[in-house]
Amino acid sequence: MLPKRALAAFRSALGADRVFDDAATRALYASDETPRRVDPDAVLFPASHDQVAALMRVAFEHRVAVTPRGAGSGNVGGALPAPGSVVVSFECMRRVLEFNPVDRLVVVEPGVVTRDIDHLAREAGLFYPPDPGSGDYCRIGGNLAMNAAGPRAVKYGVTRDYALGLRAVTGRGEEIRTGCRTTKGVTGYDLTRLLVGSGGTLALITEATLKLLPAPESVATLRVCFADTRTALDAVARVMRQAVMPSALEFMDQRAIDAIRPTGTADDLPVGTRALLMVEADGTAAELPRQIAALEAALDGPGLLEAKSGFERDAIARLWAARKSLSHAVKQIAPLKINEDVVVPVSRLADFVDFLDHTARAQRLAVVSFGHAGNGNLHVNLMVHPDDADEMARAQRALEAIMQQVLALGGTLSGEHGIGTEKRRFVPQEIDAVTLELMRAIKRQFDPHGLLNPGKIFPD
Amino acid sequence: MLPKRALAAFRSALGADRVFDDAATRALYASDETPRRVDPDAVLFPASHDQVAALMRVAFEHRVAVTPRGAGSGNVGGALPAPGSVVVSFECMRRVLEFNPVDRLVVVEPGVVTRDIDHLAREAGLFYPPDPGSGDYCRIGGNLAMNAAGPRAVKYGVTRDYALGLRAVTGRGEEIRTGCRTTKGVTGYDLTRLLVGSGGTLALITEATLKLLPAPESVATLRVCFADTRTALDAVARVMRQAVMPSALEFMDQRAIDAIRPTGTADDLPVGTRALLMVEADGTAAELPRQIAALEAALDGPGLLEAKSGFERDAIARLWAARKSLSHAVKQIAPLKINEDVVVPVSRLADFVDFLDHTARAQRLAVVSFGHAGNGNLHVNLMVHPDDADEMARAQRALEAIMQQVLALGGTLSGEHGIGTEKRRFVPQEIDAVTLELMRAIKRQFDPHGLLNPGKIFPD
Repeated sequence: MLPKRALAAFRSALGADRVFDDAATRALYASDETPRRVDPDAVLFPASHDQVAALMRVAFEHRVAVTPRGAGSGNVGGALPAPGSVVVSFECMRRVLEFNPVDRLVVVEPGVVTRDIDHLAREAGLFYPPDPGSGDYCRIGGNLAMNAAGPRAVKYGVTRDYALGLRAVTGRGEEIRTGCRTTKGVTGYDLTRLLVGSGGTLALITEATLKLLPAPESVATLRVCFADTRTALDAVARVMRQAVMPSALEFMDQRAIDAIRPTGTADDLPVGTRALLMVEADGTAAELPRQIAALEAALDGPGLLEAKSGFERDAIARLWAARKSLSHAVKQIAPLKINEDVVVPVSRLADFVDFLDHTARAQRLAVVSFGHAGNGNLHVNLMVHPDDADEMARAQRALEAIMQQVLALGGTLSGEHGIGTEKRRFVPQEIDAVTLELMRAIKRQFDPHGLLNPGKIFPD
Repeated sequence: MLPKRALAAFRSALGADRVFDDAATRALYASDETPRRVDPDAVLFPASHDQVAALMRVAFEHRVAVTPRGAGSGNVGGALPAPGSVVVSFECMRRVLEFNPVDRLVVVEPGVVTRDIDHLAREAGLFYPPDPGSGDYCRIGGNLAMNAAGPRAVKYGVTRDYALGLRAVTGRGEEIRTGCRTTKGVTGYDLTRLLVGSGGTLALITEATLKLLPAPESVATLRVCFADTRTALDAVARVMRQAVMPSALEFMDQRAIDAIRPTGTADDLPVGTRALLMVEADGTAAELPRQIAALEAALDGPGLLEAKSGFERDAIARLWAARKSLSHAVKQIAPLKINEDVVVPVSRLADFVDFLDHTARAQRLAVVSFGHAGNGNLHVNLMVHPDDADEMARAQRALEAIMQQVLALGGTLSGEHGIGTEKRRFVPQEIDAVTLELMRAIKRQFDPHGLLNPGKIFPD
């Protein structure tokens, strides 16, 4: 348990109304979207950069581990409290410190909701491209920690590509500033992109300067039905080989389609549809028809049942709501979702999904796959019953085989969810021992006592 | 001087025909584009990753400093030999190890010429966006070390945005592998982007996996003349505020225009032209006219004298050749060019150039400015006579004032040339002491004996 002196020091640094150690609060902050729970020793709600620095100095002095947390919407245990740690929730740090449409940037605190940044930008004809499925409630601090992405990444890139500069607090409680306010800059090492994706293990981000882009005038959506998974993924590879870059290229397998049926958006699919692509293009209203024609031409091929365009704005919103509901909707299939966010080269997607089918059959498991196929990034969900020990064992065997295959195909363990607690045992299969030790050595420079989000990313 | 035993060990590791310590070779590798010379103790020409690892193990054992070098075309002394060091030239490592158009990537050794990557990609309808002015002869290893860019960065980003993964050798002679082969990946810390822009101070890059993009079908160029600098830069800010992203947005001041007159491309400029913009758009032939119209609308305003489009392919090539000749052509004005590659927010460009004019007058200096205005990235050249001690002193005073102003405007010391030896004394004005010490600490993890490109980036 947290020493009384440490608790008192946190209260003295932040004020008593920003430090809670009652059982109810601790239970509320015990988990993220993974099926694990660890009660933290206390939950802290700093209101400013200075308070974050102050609490970290207390943590450093008293050797208290810190678990940073945005909305707790992560999928890999990144915000799962380390035993004996205090959670630092950034919920109260949600100020927009600067909005500068002329230089196309915004400076925000980490507790700002991702979608709110996009909405603010749109008021000035700009937008914030990264659009994680949890965008309506996740916080930008969590997005930066995990290098979050979403459907638009296929055209616009990931959170890393929009972080110009950061203000942060190291594991010693010291302030650092990284990067710059301009779209180019090579002064010193790129600590901005080192912090982005580091899962809160190097520093606590307290301010982020984010790049914005001009908002596209119009968007058009294609819903494309295929007779089977393989032909759908071959079509993805064809789309990614030609010149018109879609602004989204999403895939759903048969089970994912079944999971969205309650939304009504799958009622009019052609008979025999076993795989679905959602393809989006953006640009000016004048050029969109040509883009859509090019995409339709690339999509055309074996297995194509229907490519439907011309949806109204409301219908498009319903399609996307259905797609974004998938992450939760699949839980109807079985109570526990083991969610793997893997990436393979686009040219190997079809082979990879064949392997998944084979593995699911061999281990008698329900597997649902969907995701950002244009980036080769699939969310592979093993749907299991946690009380069924035999099924859980088979799921673990499947997981091992899937990760091995991802790496054998030239892929990577995580595309946008990060490593957290859930994938760290696989990390040595992707990263060699020398490189991994270098990462640990870098961590020690930021956080010599290992207080920042311990138990994440690195294998034991 | 290099101990005989170290020289023998290098010869034993690489073969005698890859290690030279004769005076002529050492003199050839004594400088880059800066006006300084330091003869290295020897020059090494490794032919493979394994040879780089072998030579670095020798350097580690014998505590020999290493100066990595591509084409020596850098502007900041990044390849200037540290006293007592050996130059490692990557000229002989110029294999394309893999070209994979389907997954839009290429794997290259560091000695490959940048333009050759672009040419190879175009054979498959793709392109490699970063286009430094020295692209015809600079090497991709140097581009990665300095995070090189060029005109296309305004739309397509910089070298950092195209490096997917790296193979490299640390200061201990150990191999590391960073990143992945896919467009998304968040497994472990982002060492790829930590190495890019680190100027060869963290590791020697031996292989790079680079992302390619679909080549645009067509390009159109506007040459836009203004009555003065301020109105031209106000027009740049207007262009960057609207939705059509130019694929280049280059600025030349009066002296830069005069410097390209010998090329003949300035013969038909309207009388009274004192500032020039080159604005490019790319896309399909069908959509280009609309893009050009939008850009022309944004450019229109006070001071506009002429916006000329419809150049033939050859004329465009001549315009760009003239623009790219500037870096050398300005040397006609005075024998020494003190070249500053600074960045300010686009909205502050006009104020910054006003300040430059004021400073040039106050210090009685000839200053030539041109560059990538769409990114706020100007190449400010103080043209001086090195034998004129008073002028050199005034140039140093001007330089101090310019750097202070850049930072006061929210800019950064370098956009694409890097810090090298030339700007390191200014670094503490941009990067605070804690952050800078963290960078040094990171360097020690990669290179505990400080053997990799010493004397660069960090102030003494």
